[in-house]
Amino acid sequence: MRRLVNDPYQIVEEMLEGYCAAFKDKVELIGEMKRVVVSKKAPIKDKVGIIVGGGSGHEPLFLGYVGDGFADAAVIGNINTSPSPEPCYEAVKAVDAGKGCVYLYGNYAGDVLNFDMGAEMAADDGIRVETVLVTDDVISAENVEDRRGIAGDFFVFKAAAAKAELGGDIDEVVAAAKKCNANCATMGVAMGAADHPNTGTVMFEMEEGDMEIGMGIHGEPGVKREKARPMDEVVDEILDVLIPELKLKEGDEVYVLANSLGATPLMDLMVGFRRVAEVLGEKGIKIYKTLAGPYASTMNMPGFSFTLLKLDDELKELMDYPTDAPYFVQK
Amino acid sequence: MRRLVNDPYQIVEEMLEGYCAAFKDKVELIGEMKRVVVSKKAPIKDKVGIIVGGGSGHEPLFLGYVGDGFADAAVIGNINTSPSPEPCYEAVKAVDAGKGCVYLYGNYAGDVLNFDMGAEMAADDGIRVETVLVTDDVISAENVEDRRGIAGDFFVFKAAAAKAELGGDIDEVVAAAKKCNANCATMGVAMGAADHPNTGTVMFEMEEGDMEIGMGIHGEPGVKREKARPMDEVVDEILDVLIPELKLKEGDEVYVLANSLGATPLMDLMVGFRRVAEVLGEKGIKIYKTLAGPYASTMNMPGFSFTLLKLDDELKELMDYPTDAPYFVQK
Repeated sequence: MRRLVNDPYQIVEEMLEGYCAAFKDKVELIGEMKRVVVSKKAPIKDKVGIIVGGGSGHEPLFLGYVGDGFADAAVIGNINTSPSPEPCYEAVKAVDAGKGCVYLYGNYAGDVLNFDMGAEMAADDGIRVETVLVTDDVISAENVEDRRGIAGDFFVFKAAAAKAELGGDIDEVVAAAKKCNANCATMGVAMGAADHPNTGTVMFEMEEGDMEIGMGIHGEPGVKREKARPMDEVVDEILDVLIPELKLKEGDEVYVLANSLGATPLMDLMVGFRRVAEVLGEKGIKIYKTLAGPYASTMNMPGFSFTLLKLDDELKELMDYPTDAPYFVQK
Repeated sequence: MRRLVNDPYQIVEEMLEGYCAAFKDKVELIGEMKRVVVSKKAPIKDKVGIIVGGGSGHEPLFLGYVGDGFADAAVIGNINTSPSPEPCYEAVKAVDAGKGCVYLYGNYAGDVLNFDMGAEMAADDGIRVETVLVTDDVISAENVEDRRGIAGDFFVFKAAAAKAELGGDIDEVVAAAKKCNANCATMGVAMGAADHPNTGTVMFEMEEGDMEIGMGIHGEPGVKREKARPMDEVVDEILDVLIPELKLKEGDEVYVLANSLGATPLMDLMVGFRRVAEVLGEKGIKIYKTLAGPYASTMNMPGFSFTLLKLDDELKELMDYPTDAPYFVQK
């Protein structure tokens, strides 16, 4: 392992303590188990509450996107583990302003189970909670509803949060998030595994010099394992899936997210983005905006993904809505 | 190597092409050698030009900080290699608005040689160019003037840029940058090396499970190589150097930058920052603000540094000045 830790079984607690100290003007840590990062502005009068969450180890996802104009709270699980129902419920109690709340998270069985229990507890208090599952990982299942959520989380959370800020009611927020999810597709590649602090070793074995296109952010199997190929070939293969998936055609506009899983440097994301821009340009598909960096990581995993979000005027407005969360500031 | 590349000898060109396509509203690539990333707003009327630069492989340093309220241009060298004199000169020609320009970069012999030649070429055109070297790496030499520049680059560039935006003349910009540099100290630790795309192997050998406190961002030797120790012990050792270096005492205020060299995840930076906050808190030293993430990387190097910037009212104003560069947005 090439990481420094203290007690590996306290790493999430220590991370949360550090994070909430670092950004103490914007967020605080609440709840019986201290597993809810909540915006200091929450609850916000007359606004639908936006709650995101999932297992730790994907920072800055989820906690980094709690703040002004973005999520009201993030519920935090252990590494690669869903949060418990109790903090899911505590998040609702902390952010609900009488307009209900929306849970948004990647589609993983454990998260669904626990967030659903949190929603039931809130329902007992008469608070309506709706859920939107992110399912952007195109390679993870044939059926869209069975797919996992990965870097597309960022766009879907952003869409919901902006819709709520713009005064949308709970149904409108859910509709905006679902529309964003339906227009969002991601495919990644891994060249290795993250170091897991609990075991002190890699999460799975992968020979140096190999790669696996389509691998999930927890190491879920991809298309096939093979020798590393040139970046442009891999990007082409990714776009060959994403473009038909979103039925992109000449004149369409997309937002591009080049996401590092942790140990892929910005240099490589830019080399890959260069090819994305070339291919989309040849097809007359316009790039509206681009983001590149570790937006949804797996700690120090070598690998990256490209997400395309097909835009219309509403989605552009939602993406452009200003935010001031610690890990996404936009004017 | 756990990276995907195309032609390794074109990687910097491809990165620059991708970067300037991704952020085409904000920057463009200019010059005979296409090695100057310049803000689309430059030259800015009545403002001193701010030019940063150095070798590639430290992204988002330097190009990521070109933009509104931050640097006017970045001059880009090959990986771990100074830019040539010609682009240093071209940057001046592109951004000078009649008030002169300031070069800011980390103190490395090759950079000094080449930027100085660029300044001489500009002088022949009657353009005044001053230089401020960043020397925040406390472990790199006993004499402050002999020290290298690492993550502190970020703060020093920011100080100069804000001073220029606020209407400072060239002497005032230089003075602000030098003051910031004098109040800024960094110490890091590495747990391994980056993969170098040209060789396809690590830049140097380090056994997994080892660490080296004080190692430079190109693998320059640190204090000693030893078995990895708990994060808190390492942070304490770093602070034992930084606090006396800056003569910090009760009541002082600092800005903290927890910088990842690439493959150290935000989780670990936050665990370490937690300890920084504890130790400074015990000493009555206040933390004004914190940043954490890959601000000055070495591609996919496992390691991190902590930078402390001792603040006064002027430095706070400069740090808080709004920016809208692709890799640092601040309202």
